[in-house]
Amino acid sequence: MRLSEVKNHLQAKKLDAIVLFNKDSNFKYFVQGDYEHGIMFLTKKGNYLFLSPLYAPRFTGFRVVQWKEFTKDFKAFIRKHRVKRVGVDNPELLVRQKNFLRKHFRTRDVSRFLENLRESKTQEEVARIRRACRLGDSIFKKIITSFKFKTETDIVKFMKIEALKSGAELSFEPVVANASNAVVAHHEPNSRLKKGFLILDFGIKYKGYLSDMTRTIYIGKPSKKEVEAYEKVRGIQEKCIEKAGVGMGAEKLYDYSLKLFGKDKKYFVHGLGHGIGVRIHEKPSLAAKSRDRLAKGSVFTIEPGYYNPRTRIGIRIEDDVYLGNKKEVLTKSTKSLVCVKPR
Amino acid sequence: MRLSEVKNHLQAKKLDAIVLFNKDSNFKYFVQGDYEHGIMFLTKKGNYLFLSPLYAPRFTGFRVVQWKEFTKDFKAFIRKHRVKRVGVDNPELLVRQKNFLRKHFRTRDVSRFLENLRESKTQEEVARIRRACRLGDSIFKKIITSFKFKTETDIVKFMKIEALKSGAELSFEPVVANASNAVVAHHEPNSRLKKGFLILDFGIKYKGYLSDMTRTIYIGKPSKKEVEAYEKVRGIQEKCIEKAGVGMGAEKLYDYSLKLFGKDKKYFVHGLGHGIGVRIHEKPSLAAKSRDRLAKGSVFTIEPGYYNPRTRIGIRIEDDVYLGNKKEVLTKSTKSLVCVKPR
Repeated sequence: MRLSEVKNHLQAKKLDAIVLFNKDSNFKYFVQGDYEHGIMFLTKKGNYLFLSPLYAPRFTGFRVVQWKEFTKDFKAFIRKHRVKRVGVDNPELLVRQKNFLRKHFRTRDVSRFLENLRESKTQEEVARIRRACRLGDSIFKKIITSFKFKTETDIVKFMKIEALKSGAELSFEPVVANASNAVVAHHEPNSRLKKGFLILDFGIKYKGYLSDMTRTIYIGKPSKKEVEAYEKVRGIQEKCIEKAGVGMGAEKLYDYSLKLFGKDKKYFVHGLGHGIGVRIHEKPSLAAKSRDRLAKGSVFTIEPGYYNPRTRIGIRIEDDVYLGNKKEVLTKSTKSLVCVKPR
Repeated sequence: MRLSEVKNHLQAKKLDAIVLFNKDSNFKYFVQGDYEHGIMFLTKKGNYLFLSPLYAPRFTGFRVVQWKEFTKDFKAFIRKHRVKRVGVDNPELLVRQKNFLRKHFRTRDVSRFLENLRESKTQEEVARIRRACRLGDSIFKKIITSFKFKTETDIVKFMKIEALKSGAELSFEPVVANASNAVVAHHEPNSRLKKGFLILDFGIKYKGYLSDMTRTIYIGKPSKKEVEAYEKVRGIQEKCIEKAGVGMGAEKLYDYSLKLFGKDKKYFVHGLGHGIGVRIHEKPSLAAKSRDRLAKGSVFTIEPGYYNPRTRIGIRIEDDVYLGNKKEVLTKSTKSLVCVKPR
């Protein structure tokens, strides 16, 4: 978390504070925890959580100010700290929050600054994502080594319980899609498992930081054509990881993946990847029309997919890549096609 | 879910549709599931989910329309269905959603209508909450019958795993607060367990519907003064449940609880209760300045609490009450003071 850069930005933009509401991604970036109606003030002289008296968090590194009468105490607080011109996170503001801010402050959108700040990760942030990836790898290994599931939902439940057991939780509602369901990129798990590909797209949230991984395995014995389709996606995924580098245009890498898909590119229906951090979709966006560049210190997914409704083949392979001093693939699970026996 | 009442409202207010975005409580009320960028249209002639092609949900009861090019297809859709005047849910709108709506429609806030619609539950909705309450009761029973926890966090983890095992999940991040932590109404669990009261405030989400229950147990042997404090809160809680009835002002019931607390009312720092449903806080609000009345068919919590920082005693007892043809307490766990041995 980069409070010194916030201070410089306040100075440069002549702002008294950045004001963030509970549930905003940037609120989570600076302080973990869910404080209903909580408001965060990042000022040049100190950082405050303005909270309901129902909350008394201790280890946030922030000064906690509890209100008794909200309006009166809020006004007193901003008067005391001379907060008039504030930076806000426009894209995540609710209409009523925006109205509230306008009543008390002159506002300026600082969402781009915050997004850029979050894009390039500190060592501590990378360590948390790395740990989240490792926990995800270990759950994937458990899934394939004793494959005992009857339905897609069984696997979802298994993932969630294993994540909790390891002191973490899932970072989003996972996609578990088997056979013809695998053709739907964001299929909702519900079916009994049968012969065919099985997409497992899930991630772990560890100390506020998220991982995101996809592996596609096969239930039963795949045909030659199916193996070829799988190896093609795998080849593209690996080539894209190889190609990725600091300063590269994100759209350019996406275009490169389209080129590798060739005539099959119409079956690749989503972007090539996205940044991860405290949110599951952050900067950069590796997709058509993206103006982002791959930044030093960023962590993003590379996840080409192939969804052919005619042949009913659905495949996606996704890793998390860190562009540090060296390029590092944080998810380590095997990408050889794993085949399991149906139950 | 009351789509016929929506149609009547559209008619009465001369609206072409109600338009809701994914993640809005009312979106969840009509359709479960999380469809990134999804938009719901409730029109007089039919109900639609306008979704990204990455999603293909099947059992929603809605007609699913997948876009290819968002803007072009969105315009074509609203032209085809002649959607011009729309009802929207102002309180939950993001600024950019509001701007988007304004570009395409004339809008009118229908949040009050939707809130009132959700307040009075159907039999199916009550059945889901009842089931959520029952699952919560069974987890509470497991916690007290073999109390083997060392930290507050252990209990949180146990609750989450048990909820998943029973095919559900927790409805919010639980409050587990022991000894002097119990004085903080929304304490964040982190401490090693020791002698004293232990507040367990948690709920279950079952098929989209939430329960919310609090029991306060004791680790070790309570003093006479502690037992008295507990029995006082319990007495107040039971009297408030007894008093609650259809048509009563919600603030009046809150005032009644203050009266029962007498000189201790300064230690009762939050509201007496709140409606539950697809959100954890719905109508009615049983608190100071509430203008709500307790409606027929509503389900709400009754949860007086006592938080004395001087004596370090914190107690809260919470049940879910359904005002059907008869009044029904949906949470059945014992309210006798349960004492467990420290580990």
